[in-house]
Amino acid sequence: MKGNIVIGQSGGPTAVINSSVAGVYAAAKKLGVKKIYGMVHGIQGFLQDNLCDLDEYLADEAGLELLKRTPSAFLGSCRFKMPKIEGHEATYEKVFEIMEKHDIECLFYAGGNDSMDTVKMLSDYAAAHGKPQRFMGVPKTIDNDLPITDHCPGYGSAAKYIATSMKEIIRDNESFGVEKPTITIVEIMGRHAGWLTAAAALSKGEDCSGPDAVYMPEVTFDMDRFMEKVKHLAATKSSVVIAVSEGVALADGRFVCELGNASDFVDAFGHKQLSGCAATLANKVAAETGLKTRAIEFSTLQRAATHLASLTDINEAFQVGYDAVMAAEEGKTGMMITLNRNGDDPYQCGTSAYDIHAIANVERGVPSEWITEDGCGLTEEYIKYARPLIMGELTPLFINGMPRHLVRKKG
Amino acid sequence: MKGNIVIGQSGGPTAVINSSVAGVYAAAKKLGVKKIYGMVHGIQGFLQDNLCDLDEYLADEAGLELLKRTPSAFLGSCRFKMPKIEGHEATYEKVFEIMEKHDIECLFYAGGNDSMDTVKMLSDYAAAHGKPQRFMGVPKTIDNDLPITDHCPGYGSAAKYIATSMKEIIRDNESFGVEKPTITIVEIMGRHAGWLTAAAALSKGEDCSGPDAVYMPEVTFDMDRFMEKVKHLAATKSSVVIAVSEGVALADGRFVCELGNASDFVDAFGHKQLSGCAATLANKVAAETGLKTRAIEFSTLQRAATHLASLTDINEAFQVGYDAVMAAEEGKTGMMITLNRNGDDPYQCGTSAYDIHAIANVERGVPSEWITEDGCGLTEEYIKYARPLIMGELTPLFINGMPRHLVRKKG
Repeated sequence: MKGNIVIGQSGGPTAVINSSVAGVYAAAKKLGVKKIYGMVHGIQGFLQDNLCDLDEYLADEAGLELLKRTPSAFLGSCRFKMPKIEGHEATYEKVFEIMEKHDIECLFYAGGNDSMDTVKMLSDYAAAHGKPQRFMGVPKTIDNDLPITDHCPGYGSAAKYIATSMKEIIRDNESFGVEKPTITIVEIMGRHAGWLTAAAALSKGEDCSGPDAVYMPEVTFDMDRFMEKVKHLAATKSSVVIAVSEGVALADGRFVCELGNASDFVDAFGHKQLSGCAATLANKVAAETGLKTRAIEFSTLQRAATHLASLTDINEAFQVGYDAVMAAEEGKTGMMITLNRNGDDPYQCGTSAYDIHAIANVERGVPSEWITEDGCGLTEEYIKYARPLIMGELTPLFINGMPRHLVRKKG
Repeated sequence: MKGNIVIGQSGGPTAVINSSVAGVYAAAKKLGVKKIYGMVHGIQGFLQDNLCDLDEYLADEAGLELLKRTPSAFLGSCRFKMPKIEGHEATYEKVFEIMEKHDIECLFYAGGNDSMDTVKMLSDYAAAHGKPQRFMGVPKTIDNDLPITDHCPGYGSAAKYIATSMKEIIRDNESFGVEKPTITIVEIMGRHAGWLTAAAALSKGEDCSGPDAVYMPEVTFDMDRFMEKVKHLAATKSSVVIAVSEGVALADGRFVCELGNASDFVDAFGHKQLSGCAATLANKVAAETGLKTRAIEFSTLQRAATHLASLTDINEAFQVGYDAVMAAEEGKTGMMITLNRNGDDPYQCGTSAYDIHAIANVERGVPSEWITEDGCGLTEEYIKYARPLIMGELTPLFINGMPRHLVRKKG
C-alpha cells in the first residue's frame, strides 16, 4: 500500500472492538504504511476531519497490549448512517475530499449491520464515480447477527460475561433454602436476535444446572405458557432463574416490555414510567404467585466487560482487523472479513473477504433447529457452536486493584 | 479442642464467605479436630439437624482452593433469626441438643449484623444455663457496616466489582461523541450504609474520571439539588455517570425508590409496579431534560462476582475464619473476630477477638468526614481506606471457558 489508511469504530461498543483496531494497526505497520489514522467518533467525526494518529498510542507493544484490554470504542463511536446517495452527493464527496487530504488509500470500518451499510454505500459511490479509494468492513457486534460469517467478534466475550454472571446469579439464588423459591428473571440484550440470551445456556455444566428457561425473540412469547412454566418450576424447585431477551414479543407484535409501559402509567412526578421486560415479567409473576421475584438487567455491562473477555474473541477480533488490511493490500474493496469455521473439536477458524452487498442490512437469528421444542431452551448444537467462542482469558493489567485501560487524549 | 466443631453461613451471600469456611476448616484440621461439620442453610438447617461433613469436600487442597473461588454460600444460607430467649427456651435447647448429639464443642457463624445477634443470643444462653459449648462470630457482609472491625470480609470484593464495572460503564457511556450526553444512573446496594456506593469512587484513576456524583444514604437526598447537579453536568460534559445507593431518602424519610411506586401505579396487568431508585431518577431526569437516560442496577451481581474477587479480601475472609477457631481453642466464646488495621502504606492488618455484645445489632455508616462538602463525593481519606481492600486477584479455575465452582451434594 502506497497511501495511508484510516480505521473507524461505529455502533454499540463491545469488549473487543479495540482488538480489531490493534489488528489493523499491526498489519498496516507490517506493510510499512506511513500514517495509520483513527477516526474520532466514526464516520461522523471523519466528516469533520476529526482524526488521530495511532502511532501516538500504539507505537510500542505495551500500548497495543493495553488497547486489547480496553473496553468500548477507544476511538469513540457514532450512530451516524450515511444518507442515501441521491441528493446527498456532497456528503459523499466530503468523505473522499478528507481521504485525499490525508492521502488515505483505504478506509476500514468496524461495526455491525448499519456500519456495513456505510462500507457498502461508500464503496458503491467510489465504483460509480471512478474513485480509487478502497473500503473494507471489519465485523463487530455482540448481537452476532451478521450473515455469512460464522460468528461476529464481540459475541464471544459478551457470551462469556453473560454465562459467567448467570452462573453467579444462579449460585446466589440457590443460597437460601426456604420452602418458597425466589424467581429471578434476567434480561439480556438483543432486540431482534436471541444469540446473547442463548449464551445464558452456557452456564450449565457439572457444577451448575443452568437457567431454567431461556426466552428468545425468535419464538413468539406466549404469556400463559410462560406463567404455567414459572408456576411449575416454582412448585418443583427451590430456586428458579430465567433468562429473557429484551426483544421477546407477543403474537400481536407488542414487545413484552411494552406491557409495563401502558400510556396511563405515570410515576409520582407525573412522568411516564419506563420498565424493562424482566421487570414487567417479575411484577406479573409476583402478583400472580405471591412469590418473591427479582429482575436483573445486564444492561451495558454485557458489552463492556473486557475484564472477562474471551481470548478466542480477542484474537479473532484482532485477526479480522489484520486480514482486512491484507485484503485491501490485494486490492479488494467493498468487502467484509468473515470468520469461517473449519472444525469444532479442535476448534479451527479462518477468514475470507466477502462481498459487502450480501451482508449489509441482513440480520441472522438463532436457527430454529437450535431451539428446543418447548421454545425456551437451547440444543446441544448451539452449545457446540458457542462453547469455543468463550474459551480462554486475557488477564487484565491490574493497577491499584483495577483493570487499566488505554485512553485517547481529548481535545 | 477435644470435641467437634460446626460452621454455618447466614444472611446475604458474598463473593468470599466460602473462604471463611475454608479458614475454619484449615485451622480445625491443624488442631486435629475430628469432625468439622457444615450447617446446611445456617442455624435454620441446624435446628433440623441438617449437617454435612466438610471432609467430603475439603480433604484435598484442590477442594479448598476451589471453595475459595466459589461464590455465594457453599453451605446454603438462611435469614432465620434466633427468637428472644424468654418463651423460646425449647428452640435454644434444641440447638444444644444437636450440638451434644454430634459432640460439637464450638459453633462458628459467618454473617453480618443479624448473624452476630444469633452468636450473642446463643452464647448468652450458654452462659446463663451453664452450658460448656462455645460460640464465635466470623464477620461477613458486603455492606461493611459492622462496628469495631476496620472493615468486613466481603466488602473488598464487592467494592472491586463495583469499581471495575463502574469504570467499564463510564468507558461505554463515553463512547458516543454526540452533542447531548447520555445520563447513566447506577444503583448500588446498601439500604442504610453507603459503603458499597462509595466504592464507585475507586474507579477514578489516571485512565478514568470516575463517577460524576455519588449519592449515599448517609446524606439526606435533596431532589432539587440533584436535578440541578445533573443539569449542570449535562451542560458541561459529553458523558454523565452517577452512582446512587438504593437507600437514599428524602428529608421526610421516604426512600427515593418509593417515589416511583405511588399506590396508583399499576401496569397493564393491573399490578403494582415496583421500580428501583435509579429507574425512578432516570425517568425523572429524562422527563425534565429530554436527555437519554439509562438506569443500571448491579443487583446480586455485586455480591456474587467471585470471578473478580479481591485477593486481599479472600485472604482476610480465610484469616478471620482461621483465627475464630484459634480463639475458640483458647477458650473464648461470645466473640467476633475483628480486622485491625495497623498501617495503610504498606497495608497491614491483624485480627483480634472482640465481645459480641458491642457488635451485634450495631450499624456503622460512612463517616461524615469522608463525604465531600457537596454531599455527593468521597474524600481522599475514603480512597486511602478502601484501596488496599480491593488489591490483588485470585485467578478463577476456568473449565470450558467458565469459572468452576465447588458444589455441595444435595439430598
